[in-house]
Amino acid sequence: MPRAVRAFPTFRSVIMWCVVGCDPDVGGALAVITGHDVGIVDTVRIFDCPTQTVMVNRSPRKRVCVDGMVALVRELNLPAGTVAHLEVGGGRSAYNSQTCFVQGAASGTWHGVLVSHDFDVRLVAASTWKWALTLARRRAPRDKNESRELAKRLFADVAGVADLLRLRKDHGRAEALLLAAHGHWAEGNRDPLATRVNCQIAIRKSQQ
Amino acid sequence: MPRAVRAFPTFRSVIMWCVVGCDPDVGGALAVITGHDVGIVDTVRIFDCPTQTVMVNRSPRKRVCVDGMVALVRELNLPAGTVAHLEVGGGRSAYNSQTCFVQGAASGTWHGVLVSHDFDVRLVAASTWKWALTLARRRAPRDKNESRELAKRLFADVAGVADLLRLRKDHGRAEALLLAAHGHWAEGNRDPLATRVNCQIAIRKSQQ
Repeated sequence: MPRAVRAFPTFRSVIMWCVVGCDPDVGGALAVITGHDVGIVDTVRIFDCPTQTVMVNRSPRKRVCVDGMVALVRELNLPAGTVAHLEVGGGRSAYNSQTCFVQGAASGTWHGVLVSHDFDVRLVAASTWKWALTLARRRAPRDKNESRELAKRLFADVAGVADLLRLRKDHGRAEALLLAAHGHWAEGNRDPLATRVNCQIAIRKSQQ
Repeated sequence: MPRAVRAFPTFRSVIMWCVVGCDPDVGGALAVITGHDVGIVDTVRIFDCPTQTVMVNRSPRKRVCVDGMVALVRELNLPAGTVAHLEVGGGRSAYNSQTCFVQGAASGTWHGVLVSHDFDVRLVAASTWKWALTLARRRAPRDKNESRELAKRLFADVAGVADLLRLRKDHGRAEALLLAAHGHWAEGNRDPLATRVNCQIAIRKSQQ
C-alpha cells in the first residue's frame, strides 16, 4: 500500500482510509476525504480556515487563528501518519512584502500544526497541481470559478459537495478538495479516486 | 501569580517556573529559562532553530525544519501553559517578496508548533522589545553585537551563557534569550529576573 493511504480500524470496525488537502490562505480550507477502502470516496468534509480579526496599523484585518486551527485538527482526530497535501506559494513579486509575509505565516502555521499532530505533510507548489489539473493555462487569466466547477464534477456523486461549493467565495474550499484529490492521483495510485481525476483531466483537455 | 509564570512540580519535587523566548528566523533560536521559583534564573538553555537545505530554483537554501522543531519541542517536555514569547516581524519593504514569505513561514511554523504543544504563545513585535531594551535607537544603525553583549551581561552569573553567545553568529541565540527576559519583564513582574532587566536598561540609558 502506498504511504499516501493508511488502513486503520475505526469505531465501526471497518478499514478506512483518508487523505487531507489544505489551501493555507486566510480564505482557505482543510478538506478531508474518507472511504471504506483505498480510493473509494464515501465522505467529503471541508472546514474553512479558522480566522480572527486583528488590528494592523489601526485597521482590522482577517488573519488565521492558530488556536482555532489546533482545535479543528484535534477535533478531526485522524490517525497518525495521515497524508496531508499542503499548498506552498512562495512570494510573488506582484504582491507587497506584507502580503507575502502574511501568506508565508498562514502556510507555515498549517505546516507546524499538521506536523505537530503527526500528519505526513507533503508540500505541493500551487503551479504544480494547477497545471496538472489544467486549471492554469498559458496566456489565460485564472478563473476562480473553474476550481469549483472541477471539484463539483469530480465529486458529483458525493453527498453535500455541491452544497459546500455553491458560492463564488467557496473557491478556497474547492482548492483544498482538489489538493487532496490531485495529491492522491499524483502519487501514482490506480484506484477509483485516481480514475476520477484522470477522467476529468481528459475531459478538460478535450474541451480546450 | 501572573499567567506568565507557572508553578509546577518536577521529578525532583521542587516548584519550578520557566519562560521561553523564540527568535523565529532561520538563523534564530529557542531559549528556555528555568528556576526553582518565579523570576529566579537557575538554568538557561538555548537551541538553534533546526534547519534543512532545500533546493529553490536549483540553488540550495537553508530553511526551517518542521520535523526538527516538533522533535525539539517534544523533547523539551515543558508543562502545558508555559509562556513562550515569539517575535513577529511583518514584511519590510526593504525585503523582496520571497524573503518576506520565508520569514512569515518560519514565524508561522513556530507559532503552529508551539500552540499545538500547549504553549501560551505571546506575540511581540521586533520593534517593541528592541526599543524597550534600548537596542533600537533613532538614527543609529543596528549592531548585531549589542544583543549578545546585553544578553551576556543580563545572565553574567548563569553557567554557560557566555559560552553559548561567544560568536558573532550567535546573535539569534541572544535575541531568543532577550525575548524571554523582555517578555517576563514587560508583563509587570517584580522579581529577580525583572530586576535584572530593569538594571540593564538603566545602565544602557545612562551610557547613551
